[in-house]
Amino acid sequence: MKIGLLGFGVVGRGVYDILAQRKDISVGTVLCRRDLGELTARTTRDMADIIADPEIDTVVEVMGGLHPAFEYVSAALKAGKNVVTSNKHLLCHYYQELNQLAKEHGAVLRGTAAVGGGIPWLVNLERAARVDQIHKLSGIMNGTTNYIMDAMNKSDVDFADVLKKAQELGYAEADPSADIDGWDIQRKLIISAGVAFGVCLQEEDVPVFGIRNVSAADIRRFQARGLTCKLIASAEKLSDSVAAYVEPKLLGADALEAAVPANFNLISFESEYAGKQSFFGQGAGRYPTAYNVVQDLADIASGVDRFYTDKFQSAATNNAGALHKYYVRTKAELPELEALAAEDWDGAVVTLPVSVAQMHSLLQKMLEVDPQSFIAGL
Amino acid sequence: MKIGLLGFGVVGRGVYDILAQRKDISVGTVLCRRDLGELTARTTRDMADIIADPEIDTVVEVMGGLHPAFEYVSAALKAGKNVVTSNKHLLCHYYQELNQLAKEHGAVLRGTAAVGGGIPWLVNLERAARVDQIHKLSGIMNGTTNYIMDAMNKSDVDFADVLKKAQELGYAEADPSADIDGWDIQRKLIISAGVAFGVCLQEEDVPVFGIRNVSAADIRRFQARGLTCKLIASAEKLSDSVAAYVEPKLLGADALEAAVPANFNLISFESEYAGKQSFFGQGAGRYPTAYNVVQDLADIASGVDRFYTDKFQSAATNNAGALHKYYVRTKAELPELEALAAEDWDGAVVTLPVSVAQMHSLLQKMLEVDPQSFIAGL
Repeated sequence: MKIGLLGFGVVGRGVYDILAQRKDISVGTVLCRRDLGELTARTTRDMADIIADPEIDTVVEVMGGLHPAFEYVSAALKAGKNVVTSNKHLLCHYYQELNQLAKEHGAVLRGTAAVGGGIPWLVNLERAARVDQIHKLSGIMNGTTNYIMDAMNKSDVDFADVLKKAQELGYAEADPSADIDGWDIQRKLIISAGVAFGVCLQEEDVPVFGIRNVSAADIRRFQARGLTCKLIASAEKLSDSVAAYVEPKLLGADALEAAVPANFNLISFESEYAGKQSFFGQGAGRYPTAYNVVQDLADIASGVDRFYTDKFQSAATNNAGALHKYYVRTKAELPELEALAAEDWDGAVVTLPVSVAQMHSLLQKMLEVDPQSFIAGL
Repeated sequence: MKIGLLGFGVVGRGVYDILAQRKDISVGTVLCRRDLGELTARTTRDMADIIADPEIDTVVEVMGGLHPAFEYVSAALKAGKNVVTSNKHLLCHYYQELNQLAKEHGAVLRGTAAVGGGIPWLVNLERAARVDQIHKLSGIMNGTTNYIMDAMNKSDVDFADVLKKAQELGYAEADPSADIDGWDIQRKLIISAGVAFGVCLQEEDVPVFGIRNVSAADIRRFQARGLTCKLIASAEKLSDSVAAYVEPKLLGADALEAAVPANFNLISFESEYAGKQSFFGQGAGRYPTAYNVVQDLADIASGVDRFYTDKFQSAATNNAGALHKYYVRTKAELPELEALAAEDWDGAVVTLPVSVAQMHSLLQKMLEVDPQSFIAGL
């Protein structure tokens, strides 16, 4: 197997290093705009060189971003080359298009590293879906936010200080919004729902609330009640729709998620025969992510030719029936919220069970009045 | 794919039910001594009927026990039929022989359900081993003992009462020794070490201490220090040997294992690229176990033809270098033990770091004097 490697950043370098130790899979050409110095592989700045090379049967896309990744990956699939990608934005946004292109051109498309980094999540989800009915999936899908929540749960520190430390350690980006506001997780959730349920959810339909507003005072209220706050993505298959959302959640000490430390991830599904299964590991990082890219390559090399899904049901996102209690801390005074209040938690309220759809709609009103408002599901 | 199904107990019935819903894999003949009444598949009491049937390409062995399972599985492999088994005793005891037979006769041997029930543990371990160096594995590999430890950790009850309740619920056998004395776990550990490290460990070399002697007073001592006791299997690859043992272990609240409830399992490995990965799920039960049998069949049907391992290193078990502290509660007065004591825990001692080999040797002396003695690693 001969690889065209698109991108030579953190993950690309990791893939290159791991493949350097294998005899069955080798990197033929690296596409990169920077000068890479001495490499065993050829380097190019022109994707056409890779498309035109008949020896390259498989393209690894680890550039990130939607463009030109989409154009490059599409061109590779149209040329009948297999594609392995770690690009969650690309897979989320073009999931159906890319799967269909792969199918039309007899190529394999895989992207295990796009969700959960080094965790074999998507590949096990795909395996489960081939013999079982998956009902639900949920979990901690982002290491940056788990690092922040873990640090806040373990010591009485404020969000801004922990974020700054995470940035210094390289666990958070200079612009941390994709992580802390939950957009990275939303994309991973949509890809996971696609693999598990064979559906294509739209990003604009999946409500997201991140951890930017969580305060040390919130954490103290949770700890006084034995609860741990984590940022959780959830999806559940309904008869003809899918409930899917991303929000902070309060967990008891007996939840596995509550024990997930530092920048680790833990993702679970529930299915008819297998019951509940959870997968824990490094959700990001050079070698864990590159590991799953190489696993996808090894699968293709060993003849695994199934796509993540070859049929799509049309299914809308519907959070009207997903009901639970919420912790709400806001200075906004909204009659709808007051009508829902059931318990007073020292300056915050816990509501009656309310739908995710209703609470995320209420949340928008709260944020207009008090931009520091915070909610978490119970 | 046409199946010869050996055994129609809890797991056999589960496999039959799941396959009844598939078109690509069907049960041709069931081997069972009991009268099974009306089944779509043929039934027989004679293994020769299955061996002689050219339509049956794959045998599923879910009878349990060493004999005649070994003879039947060997005959199937020699006839070039693939074999899927959930029989941990068989796989542990004849791992190398059966793998070699499969290789010689061009058949596939798989046994994912033999370790971790419904958890895709062995298949992920095998996948990791093909692209990564696995250093360590450990975890909760038995649901019966985890159910007992969880119940004792959650309420102040004695071992005998919890065992009785577990037996009433069907979580423990009438003769519970294989579970509570750790022999079931030892077999699963040896199979896992075989897959991870390509070695064949001998049962007599892997020390085992179970939970039969744990008391409510022990649990109270652990809880006073924020510790949770679980029965843990561990193996670590050394340069030319393997440290491997089964013993109770005291875990802090931040260990994932500490949060594993009821009869669930959680098993982890650590490898060079992927880091630490953990797998949680149902470690036993009809449909979870049958699920993994059917996953193995689906793998074979999709052309996965690798064995768990096709090369074996000779590696002895060596626990002389595996050092940690131990909690020891015994009435035996041994000078060697007194020399190791470092802390007093209200009637029990915690030792200095000591090798697993030395402590399990000391344990035999303690048990001769005080058969109720209990130890746990820290």
